[in-house]
Amino acid sequence: MKIRPHRSTGIAISSTFLTAATLLMLPALALSGQTIVAEKTDRAADNKAQPDSERPQIRVEKRTPAYWRVTFDNPPFNIFGPETIPQMEKVVAEIETDPDLKVVVFDSAVPGFFLTHYNFTPPLAESTGLPSGRTGLHPLPDMLVRISKAPVVSIALIRGRATGVGSELALASDMRFASREKAILSQWEVGSGFVPGGGPMARLPRLMGRGRALEVLLGSDDVNGDLAEEYGYVNRSFDDDRLDPFVDALATRISGFDRQAIADTKRLVDFASLPSDPEIGAGWDAFISSVQRPVAQQKIGRLMEMGLQTNPDIETRLGHYTGTLAEK
Amino acid sequence: MKIRPHRSTGIAISSTFLTAATLLMLPALALSGQTIVAEKTDRAADNKAQPDSERPQIRVEKRTPAYWRVTFDNPPFNIFGPETIPQMEKVVAEIETDPDLKVVVFDSAVPGFFLTHYNFTPPLAESTGLPSGRTGLHPLPDMLVRISKAPVVSIALIRGRATGVGSELALASDMRFASREKAILSQWEVGSGFVPGGGPMARLPRLMGRGRALEVLLGSDDVNGDLAEEYGYVNRSFDDDRLDPFVDALATRISGFDRQAIADTKRLVDFASLPSDPEIGAGWDAFISSVQRPVAQQKIGRLMEMGLQTNPDIETRLGHYTGTLAEK
Amino acid sequence: MKIRPHRSTGIAISSTFLTAATLLMLPALALSGQTIVAEKTDRAADNKAQPDSERPQIRVEKRTPAYWRVTFDNPPFNIFGPETIPQMEKVVAEIETDPDLKVVVFDSAVPGFFLTHYNFTPPLAESTGLPSGRTGLHPLPDMLVRISKAPVVSIALIRGRATGVGSELALASDMRFASREKAILSQWEVGSGFVPGGGPMARLPRLMGRGRALEVLLGSDDVNGDLAEEYGYVNRSFDDDRLDPFVDALATRISGFDRQAIADTKRLVDFASLPSDPEIGAGWDAFISSVQRPVAQQKIGRLMEMGLQTNPDIETRLGHYTGTLAEK
Repeated sequence: MKIRPHRSTGIAISSTFLTAATLLMLPALALSGQTIVAEKTDRAADNKAQPDSERPQIRVEKRTPAYWRVTFDNPPFNIFGPETIPQMEKVVAEIETDPDLKVVVFDSAVPGFFLTHYNFTPPLAESTGLPSGRTGLHPLPDMLVRISKAPVVSIALIRGRATGVGSELALASDMRFASREKAILSQWEVGSGFVPGGGPMARLPRLMGRGRALEVLLGSDDVNGDLAEEYGYVNRSFDDDRLDPFVDALATRISGFDRQAIADTKRLVDFASLPSDPEIGAGWDAFISSVQRPVAQQKIGRLMEMGLQTNPDIETRLGHYTGTLAEK
Repeated sequence: MKIRPHRSTGIAISSTFLTAATLLMLPALALSGQTIVAEKTDRAADNKAQPDSERPQIRVEKRTPAYWRVTFDNPPFNIFGPETIPQMEKVVAEIETDPDLKVVVFDSAVPGFFLTHYNFTPPLAESTGLPSGRTGLHPLPDMLVRISKAPVVSIALIRGRATGVGSELALASDMRFASREKAILSQWEVGSGFVPGGGPMARLPRLMGRGRALEVLLGSDDVNGDLAEEYGYVNRSFDDDRLDPFVDALATRISGFDRQAIADTKRLVDFASLPSDPEIGAGWDAFISSVQRPVAQQKIGRLMEMGLQTNPDIETRLGHYTGTLAEK
Repeated sequence: MKIRPHRSTGIAISSTFLTAATLLMLPALALSGQTIVAEKTDRAADNKAQPDSERPQIRVEKRTPAYWRVTFDNPPFNIFGPETIPQMEKVVAEIETDPDLKVVVFDSAVPGFFLTHYNFTPPLAESTGLPSGRTGLHPLPDMLVRISKAPVVSIALIRGRATGVGSELALASDMRFASREKAILSQWEVGSGFVPGGGPMARLPRLMGRGRALEVLLGSDDVNGDLAEEYGYVNRSFDDDRLDPFVDALATRISGFDRQAIADTKRLVDFASLPSDPEIGAGWDAFISSVQRPVAQQKIGRLMEMGLQTNPDIETRLGHYTGTLAEK
């Protein structure tokens, strides 16, 4: 059963939707046929011709056999959903097994968005029904865990918003570099009534200490490039025009190093710094439980009414809008 | 048995007090009838009419059912002693059990002092004789541990000195924000010959790394707002006039979020970031052992002679004065 | 069996040396009779009269019974090799057992170099053949582990390059302070095809988080005083003329504190912050395995051809030169 939005407005939320009984039958918001409000590029128009589940959202460019760029290209917002998972799983499996690869840079082709929150349009069953990944975890945390443990170096080049899954992918990467002016990082989930699922409760305190991690998670607010650097959310922030040259130079440098020395050194750092798989799994389970609760359904519903996944202003100033959901 | 000070000077330390035999019989300095040197406010005058054990030192203001302020108000220095413990225990139990509370801010009504070191006036037996708290730990570390694990968010708003217990309460809180100009944080204990008791050996290295934690603990010197921010001793320092608006806005924001999402998220961060109770307990035991040693008794005695707990200059520039105790 | 360099050039690397068969027989580069390119001081000239294994490389100055300075003085580069190990072991044993010592400062008498990478001139067997230290680890990681656990405070005063063993000794020390203009820290090993041996995989992520640690280790590049401070690689960096007064004042201050309070407090911090001995041992084993692989032998060989251990420009700009070794 799927709730369909008014075609004219793209808004799925009706008043009956918000009754508790309806919510229990509808574990996730089910909005299809979303109206793309953002200016359409030619590429976006092309993409629309394909069904969501087949439209390529991720591009891999092998700059050299040792140095790849993985580019998120799912306009207008780089939302990550169940339909993205098989595509990303394929990329991760390649990263894990390619014998020549040494360094991979994750970046975005979508202005304003590195990679953002999970897709609330498909029914939750499309996510929970996916088979487990190689680690035994759900395929989303599975992929994040495998990126961290891969024998190659992963670098997140963050320009635009990295929220939810976007922040979690950046945190699962080995290093993170951000645009001082154009990066926004956040974990917005608690502000919307649920628990983040991709591991930030495990990763943030190990990066920045408990106090700053709790501020990021429980404040659920946008973190700009300066604060992200000060807190250690990213390795460093650079003036926007210096970000790409720096990351490219670092990736190129590492791609000339010995693959086994990289892998052996990383594995010993893993021992000192990676959370266990069950710790990551506990976070995913808390996400799945919490996102089905009436409070989360109501808050996500109100954000959808405001234009989450359709209105660029909501997606761009998400920290502000989650703040408006305050319970009376 | 209690050593009484000269009424005229408020100084308890006599030369015989410093002999080893006397020290072994006197596990703590016993100074009563202290002369309050600081200018008395009307409130302080009122408070003096009550015995120490009953005078309220902590005020709770419920700004909303979800957002409380807990204000330390024990002029002139916000010293924390065995007489404070039952009052604080009551507040902590309320924080743990109130069904509507989501965020609590700890602050101070005493100019120059957030909350400072333990009270060395009462005999040590008044502290060691207290029954264990719910965790099985002594009630002081018990309360700190319980604040960290409470299902609500705790924020320390630090203006003035946060030394000893004051620093430890801030460290046990979920987040810490400081006045750039007016905050001083420190763990002064090693400089006075004993081991801190409220958990900073466990909490500081997890926040700022081993090197900076050892500098704070073994240097035993005052840390100002800028350095506290750089080291991650606090989340952030703000220009003094911006501190209250920031903390109030953050607390208000969080108080509108879902209570269960907060609690569930915090519990998963706890797993990655909290020391175990026995680790905190080991620190308390080291404090109790060390504070009874002749060296600690002698150093505390010399500070009391100089005016610890009576002279604002000693309390205000404690880092300087502990430096003057150097062994010949 | 030792490959001897051309006396005229000091270069040990011949083209046959780079064949795989030769490499397998020669676990380490064997360069003796190195040409000292740097300007010789009188002291250096005196030192040259003694064989390497006996020339004192480390000086201990007991400023007071409680405060020692340990000065690395092995010009021109403060390279640390198997011949240094017995000298350093003697110093560490003194540090561990002297009843009056409270604080030791490690510094350098060699301009431009705090302490740098391992000596690649002697055959590897001179290193692997050394008997295990008290911890059961190889004597190099053994010494580092023992410095961290000693009951006294160790402070690294870093002016000039701290690379490889130099960085590892600084990381094993309790605190690190650096010259903003003149300090360079790095772990260059991955850039040269092998894994660092003295524990940075264990210590760096605990100090600065996984992301920055992986950047330091896998980027293998030079880190200046500003970045070292921002990343927490050092406690703080100071303008060069302020570094010595700060460290001397801190060491003097701590040397007046109680020895047992220092030791007890440090031991509790150890619990929360030190890696286990086996974790450090695993890093050493990875170093020994990796440095014998053909890739590492080839890369070290090429650096030796360029002037590693002989040419000040190579030693001074090591981050740059390791970058030139990129595999085609």
